[in-house]
Amino acid sequence: MIRVAILGATGYSALELVRILLKHPEAQITALTSRQEGNPHIAMVHPSLVGRIDLRCENLEPSAVAARADCVFCCLPHGVVTSWVPPLLAADVRVIDLSADYRLKDPEVYTKWYALKHGDTKNLPRAVYGLPELYRSQIREARLVANPGCYPTCAALALGPLLKAGLIEPRGIIIDSKSGVSGAGRELKLTTHYPECNESVSAYNVGTHRHTPEIEQTLAAFCGQEVEIIFTPHLIPMDRGILTTAYSTPRGSVSEDQLKETLQKFYADEPFVRVVDHLPGTKDTCGTNFCHVTARLVRGKVITISCEDNLVKGASGQAVQNMNLMFGFPETMGL
Amino acid sequence: MIRVAILGATGYSALELVRILLKHPEAQITALTSRQEGNPHIAMVHPSLVGRIDLRCENLEPSAVAARADCVFCCLPHGVVTSWVPPLLAADVRVIDLSADYRLKDPEVYTKWYALKHGDTKNLPRAVYGLPELYRSQIREARLVANPGCYPTCAALALGPLLKAGLIEPRGIIIDSKSGVSGAGRELKLTTHYPECNESVSAYNVGTHRHTPEIEQTLAAFCGQEVEIIFTPHLIPMDRGILTTAYSTPRGSVSEDQLKETLQKFYADEPFVRVVDHLPGTKDTCGTNFCHVTARLVRGKVITISCEDNLVKGASGQAVQNMNLMFGFPETMGL
Amino acid sequence: MIRVAILGATGYSALELVRILLKHPEAQITALTSRQEGNPHIAMVHPSLVGRIDLRCENLEPSAVAARADCVFCCLPHGVVTSWVPPLLAADVRVIDLSADYRLKDPEVYTKWYALKHGDTKNLPRAVYGLPELYRSQIREARLVANPGCYPTCAALALGPLLKAGLIEPRGIIIDSKSGVSGAGRELKLTTHYPECNESVSAYNVGTHRHTPEIEQTLAAFCGQEVEIIFTPHLIPMDRGILTTAYSTPRGSVSEDQLKETLQKFYADEPFVRVVDHLPGTKDTCGTNFCHVTARLVRGKVITISCEDNLVKGASGQAVQNMNLMFGFPETMGL
Amino acid sequence: MIRVAILGATGYSALELVRILLKHPEAQITALTSRQEGNPHIAMVHPSLVGRIDLRCENLEPSAVAARADCVFCCLPHGVVTSWVPPLLAADVRVIDLSADYRLKDPEVYTKWYALKHGDTKNLPRAVYGLPELYRSQIREARLVANPGCYPTCAALALGPLLKAGLIEPRGIIIDSKSGVSGAGRELKLTTHYPECNESVSAYNVGTHRHTPEIEQTLAAFCGQEVEIIFTPHLIPMDRGILTTAYSTPRGSVSEDQLKETLQKFYADEPFVRVVDHLPGTKDTCGTNFCHVTARLVRGKVITISCEDNLVKGASGQAVQNMNLMFGFPETMGL
Repeated sequence: MIRVAILGATGYSALELVRILLKHPEAQITALTSRQEGNPHIAMVHPSLVGRIDLRCENLEPSAVAARADCVFCCLPHGVVTSWVPPLLAADVRVIDLSADYRLKDPEVYTKWYALKHGDTKNLPRAVYGLPELYRSQIREARLVANPGCYPTCAALALGPLLKAGLIEPRGIIIDSKSGVSGAGRELKLTTHYPECNESVSAYNVGTHRHTPEIEQTLAAFCGQEVEIIFTPHLIPMDRGILTTAYSTPRGSVSEDQLKETLQKFYADEPFVRVVDHLPGTKDTCGTNFCHVTARLVRGKVITISCEDNLVKGASGQAVQNMNLMFGFPETMGL
Repeated sequence: MIRVAILGATGYSALELVRILLKHPEAQITALTSRQEGNPHIAMVHPSLVGRIDLRCENLEPSAVAARADCVFCCLPHGVVTSWVPPLLAADVRVIDLSADYRLKDPEVYTKWYALKHGDTKNLPRAVYGLPELYRSQIREARLVANPGCYPTCAALALGPLLKAGLIEPRGIIIDSKSGVSGAGRELKLTTHYPECNESVSAYNVGTHRHTPEIEQTLAAFCGQEVEIIFTPHLIPMDRGILTTAYSTPRGSVSEDQLKETLQKFYADEPFVRVVDHLPGTKDTCGTNFCHVTARLVRGKVITISCEDNLVKGASGQAVQNMNLMFGFPETMGL
Repeated sequence: MIRVAILGATGYSALELVRILLKHPEAQITALTSRQEGNPHIAMVHPSLVGRIDLRCENLEPSAVAARADCVFCCLPHGVVTSWVPPLLAADVRVIDLSADYRLKDPEVYTKWYALKHGDTKNLPRAVYGLPELYRSQIREARLVANPGCYPTCAALALGPLLKAGLIEPRGIIIDSKSGVSGAGRELKLTTHYPECNESVSAYNVGTHRHTPEIEQTLAAFCGQEVEIIFTPHLIPMDRGILTTAYSTPRGSVSEDQLKETLQKFYADEPFVRVVDHLPGTKDTCGTNFCHVTARLVRGKVITISCEDNLVKGASGQAVQNMNLMFGFPETMGL
Repeated sequence: MIRVAILGATGYSALELVRILLKHPEAQITALTSRQEGNPHIAMVHPSLVGRIDLRCENLEPSAVAARADCVFCCLPHGVVTSWVPPLLAADVRVIDLSADYRLKDPEVYTKWYALKHGDTKNLPRAVYGLPELYRSQIREARLVANPGCYPTCAALALGPLLKAGLIEPRGIIIDSKSGVSGAGRELKLTTHYPECNESVSAYNVGTHRHTPEIEQTLAAFCGQEVEIIFTPHLIPMDRGILTTAYSTPRGSVSEDQLKETLQKFYADEPFVRVVDHLPGTKDTCGTNFCHVTARLVRGKVITISCEDNLVKGASGQAVQNMNLMFGFPETMGL
């Protein structure tokens, strides 16, 4: 049994972590942090947790967290995490960061997209990108895991194996993603006010979404070549789920069967990726750590379609999958 | 053609007023106010109005509004309107107030429920409650109309005629209402943040909702007796619509047919109330100024079910209906 | 480890059972039945199960099911189950029936509300109503459990303890319930066609819903007196969840604190009922086996508000809770 | 005042036509047809029409319809309309067909995509494609208008002017569209059963959607060159609205400003197309006949984003716009 702390407990990824960890046989939540005044009970913040966990949100220092936890999940905003990681690692605590701070290998790329100087370039090289389907062995040894973004997970799992197999061109890939509103977080904004976004679909951050370089870096890691994408996220009137429709150009002559078989083979032993023949919907993966993927060849273009629950495989479920790997538990435990 | 101004143009009832008035053959919008900085074009505030109306939101004084308008719709919060009404009336402008400030006849009841001293007790007695089905002739003569609340309209239209006919007891009436989220306004709140209220239903303000005394006053006006209700509003994951299920006790022996016939007779000549046999749903009235009503007799209790679009018959549509009456236009014009 | 079969595997309660049982450490699903042609793989019927369970839907006889299972969940329509139960019980299989066939003790009441002669009056007296909060010890010994309806569970858990404590009158209780659309099942109907029920709320089966006698029977069992209710269900545009707002008359002088304390005391040791101070929303219980309950005293009426996930505590979760009791597993196992 | 009939009155586009025409000052609905037994009153079929129109759905012959109408809207399924058009045209009635039967100029293309031999190749050449922004003058003279599909309207309005101006390549255009569920019609299907499609997004008919050749034909008409697209429609959990995100390759060096200005110029005098700077959402056009369009240049690709209400500009609103043109009414009348 390991002791687990969650930093930034008031948001949706933290709530999802609590939900999952409450049923995890080898992990016990021992600390929750937030800067809310008055140390509110977590069930005041998330009423679905009434009578299921008896912890308050505390405004703790890193040393206090380190004293209580073997593993820390950071659900803090980017830019804040870099001040937490050094003391936690120094105290021999393993860290899984759900923010973007340790995902991009190149701090200049980070600065370009996040408009911030990276606050911990010392530990940045030690961070392992927490996509088990690509980096499983490194994750097992990692002290610091950068948990992938929701869109990058969904896009990379569909496109990665095809790029690796050399079936599609690494440039000019169009990634059109559709996400539920929980992906925008719990902070109040007009765009996520119910009567504004309900019964509506819109694109946002066209050409500027920060997951763009993360997707490119991850796909490049799959295929060993530079990758260039056009990424367009859309807001969909539903709580959870991401569907990613990606359009790429085949390299030479490729059949639809070849696309599916390549995916099938790559994921044959993966516990959480399913290659399907039909066109999957986000509801098929809702509430689970699964990602469903399929591929089509249409008029000389490769279309991949993948879906996941953005809060599970796209965030907290994958974080627990990483925890399982880091601590030697069965990878699917509690998931 | 009359000139119309809308105070507080950034909210949903103002947007609905603009939508309706843009198609009204006898009204022209000449001024929109808000306290937003920089006098934003109304289409920046409500993107659905792009290219349909060329006005900015201005921070105007009452005198400036009066110089530009024959009729003013107040979409301001309660407590603010009372400083606008005296100068507007003095300038001979007719006012339709969508806030609660002039609805309750007794300023002490207002103070009790709104925790505010009434700011304009002088004009309060001149205000006519703008429910045309009850006060049509007074509305025609009114200079100041208090436009009814969304819940009171829906409840009163179902229960009023039955009370008036002496078919139900005026005490112990249970009113269980279900409203779409637009009823909560455009102000950001956690309770109306999409991932909080989507896929969920909850009661709110149980026993304390401010429409309670307004419903009682309106029903008492129908039947000439004191009325006592228990009112429970619920938040429903949809944009628009109110469904009100009310439970009352029959006075003596009453049949279901008698209930329906009483309603049918009362509304025989009404342009916007329809008595139906089936169980109506809010979608039946969505986007229209109609209210659908039916009644059932179940195990010795009278159940009335009524529905409306909270932004139309429950707010802006009824306001335009009142404007039509006040200015001698056909009552249904533009609706 | 027990072997489990699910009859009628194509509907939503069956899917929910599979989801829960896949994570249950002491149960293994060994058979799924349906009358669909061609014995489709269950993942063809429910695509969310791809790669998670490798069983087909088979058109099996009772004897074949009995040979493969220690416990059978019936997710068949009412009227059909009574031909399955006798052979299953005879083969010493324990049965948990999610239909209404064994819920009503009096076959004449069954006939009145379901317009059917009861097909198995011999076993009817042996059936235990599967509400653990009321019948836990009998469930432990039962061979046949009638799993409660979704509405009866939600209503009974709120009202039962107050009736039992003599705090409210057993007659004239008004139960106004709001349910998500999954409660209407997977059969295609115009009323549950997306563009018909989305963005709409309506009442249905007013005065005629078949859960009426079931709620009355359950509440009567709590308090030992005849109970009479008025029950009005409403369809809410969401997938899951029931919120029940019930209005009753206090017996003598009762305070709000007394109401809450009575509930608190009654449920102090219950694993799945939480008495809360705030007004709960269905989302608080979504995806869990919990029921949240609160009470208010408003103008001399008692208002109880309770919520649950209709597919979990209102159906399949409670069914697994019953299975746990029947087989001596910890009551919360897998839930 | 013209007399109008609607064939196939039970579906959503017919309902939308009725709603619009009820407020149209120059059109009167005189006949509604359907093959439903018993000639149900239209308000039994569409309860939102209670008390607003007093017509029954009749099973009429073409001659009976022709005797009652100057203009006929066909809301029948494709393949059926071709038996109605010849007698109606012969009787000098003008026809606006909302099905696909007269949209594709080449009957072989029709046969290829609809798997049907065209039933009226004689009148096919007389049909004018009812996109006023492209064919306004021909529509004015037309006796038979093929009202465009919902997806083709939204895609063509965004891409057409850019193709016409030679700013983008006519081949390899990727069109990723997102539609509300009303686009799938009122026929019951599992994919549009509420609990299946709510809270989910999925692609459908990938590579095979029948609007593909229609979009290509329309875009080719804009630019006078052959056009090839990849079209992927998605089902979004909302009632109404289409958002189309299209990706194309610029021809030579093009700036984002140039793209917007070209659109702005093309639509400068159009009553129903608005070129916006921000990223539009479907809600901005909901319930209106408007289409909002914008363009971006991202990493060397042109992205256009357009939205409309699929039942208004994508069907019935555009049909009324066509009627206005055909009968010499102001183009925006009633819209």
